[in-house]
Amino acid sequence: MKRTERIGALIRILSETPSKAYSLQYFCDLFDCAKSSISEDIQTASASLQYTGTGYLETIAGAKGGVRFVPAISDEEVLSLQQEFCDRLKNPSRLLGGNFVYTSDIFYDPSIVTRLSRVFARKFRNCGANYVATVETKGIPLAYNVAHLLNLPLIVIRREARISEGSTVSINYFSGSYDRLQKMSMSKRAIRSDSKVLIIDDFMRGGGSVTGISEMVGEFGCTVCGIGIAIVAKEPERKKVSDFSPLIYLGEVSSEKKIIEAFPNTDLF
Amino acid sequence: MKRTERIGALIRILSETPSKAYSLQYFCDLFDCAKSSISEDIQTASASLQYTGTGYLETIAGAKGGVRFVPAISDEEVLSLQQEFCDRLKNPSRLLGGNFVYTSDIFYDPSIVTRLSRVFARKFRNCGANYVATVETKGIPLAYNVAHLLNLPLIVIRREARISEGSTVSINYFSGSYDRLQKMSMSKRAIRSDSKVLIIDDFMRGGGSVTGISEMVGEFGCTVCGIGIAIVAKEPERKKVSDFSPLIYLGEVSSEKKIIEAFPNTDLF
Repeated sequence: MKRTERIGALIRILSETPSKAYSLQYFCDLFDCAKSSISEDIQTASASLQYTGTGYLETIAGAKGGVRFVPAISDEEVLSLQQEFCDRLKNPSRLLGGNFVYTSDIFYDPSIVTRLSRVFARKFRNCGANYVATVETKGIPLAYNVAHLLNLPLIVIRREARISEGSTVSINYFSGSYDRLQKMSMSKRAIRSDSKVLIIDDFMRGGGSVTGISEMVGEFGCTVCGIGIAIVAKEPERKKVSDFSPLIYLGEVSSEKKIIEAFPNTDLF
Repeated sequence: MKRTERIGALIRILSETPSKAYSLQYFCDLFDCAKSSISEDIQTASASLQYTGTGYLETIAGAKGGVRFVPAISDEEVLSLQQEFCDRLKNPSRLLGGNFVYTSDIFYDPSIVTRLSRVFARKFRNCGANYVATVETKGIPLAYNVAHLLNLPLIVIRREARISEGSTVSINYFSGSYDRLQKMSMSKRAIRSDSKVLIIDDFMRGGGSVTGISEMVGEFGCTVCGIGIAIVAKEPERKKVSDFSPLIYLGEVSSEKKIIEAFPNTDLF
């Protein structure tokens, strides 16, 4: 196998399984070559990846030594993604009754979700999470993709307990968006106690559902170590949670004036 | 930029956006080099990718010329994935009341979902789909990932109409698993008429919910061009749909005998 081909294969294998550590020996065996060659290959591969702005390779010191792909996104790409997101969101054809905004097409579009999740993976890669959690439904692709990039399992909290979840714990919480009590329920099998949880969701208004998730993971003896939300409404200014990271803010939404306002969060990093 | 680095970057850019066509000119501009060099780079990159078994590069003929990353999975990897999946499923600790089987941990585990979706992407890459559709909740990460690999938007059909989906169409269908009428509802904004839809789901028993999805997309003047299901129960033998592709079969499930039977589908390709 030629060196060039080896570097290509190295990039593909590592970036297909982000944040997963491989020993150098693994690649020595796979490519049948010496550790010194693999070390050189890793340097070239990392330079190559940094050029694309989508990640880099991190070598792990220690007796065994190893390497992993760290997903990333450049400051410029974050800015242009925020701008693109705001522009798409502002389209008045998204206005629904009750001043709701249609966003499913965005959150189910892989071309945008892939990049959104690199933003949150960069933001939270050192938060020490053991799980990524979300509440069904619209945030699932985003949360799943962040979990993939951080090499963590995903937890999906359901609105209703289902028989296929086994025994569950349920809580009630007040949702400002729907102006009523809502329920969420989580399988007892979904999480180990004493874990740290990164919450990822598509949208937050007052913070009721994120508070619900925090309370829920608390029931399992776990704590929240980060909160990443794609869209956060400016109003109400006072949220039930602090310390969350929005990608963009939703301003005024008015069916009457036919406007949807959206702004990038310039304080993300 | 050295040739080796260029090939690494090429692989990363193309495999981050599977099935998306790029013109050769795009890379000429990006790397500031001639088309003949890019053509050579593509050949080396493709050899390198084929070595990993995760995909290859396909060049597109014609005036402009182009290239895309085609996700793939080798026959051997399909077999070992099926075996691993069966082994995980057979664990009797998965038994729930009513002979249901707990599978959420599998369908929310990126390390298995990534490979499962390469199986379905390989199977359905030429089915002409314009959308990938699933019904919430457990199949969403898998369906999303298949959509990503095929560069298609995802449609998530909801159990209950939500205000954030705008106007919806709803249908009722009979679910054999739950032995009762169930509802599903889909946003009118989710799909263009005359489209083809690939259905991806985590589990099928009698085929009620897949029939429901077919009926639903029919209401929008669309047709189903493929059905990929991760786990299909052997019983009932007579399903409401024909022409579906299971990855594995679920055999006898018995809390009394403490067994869960699972078999690979050997007819998948």
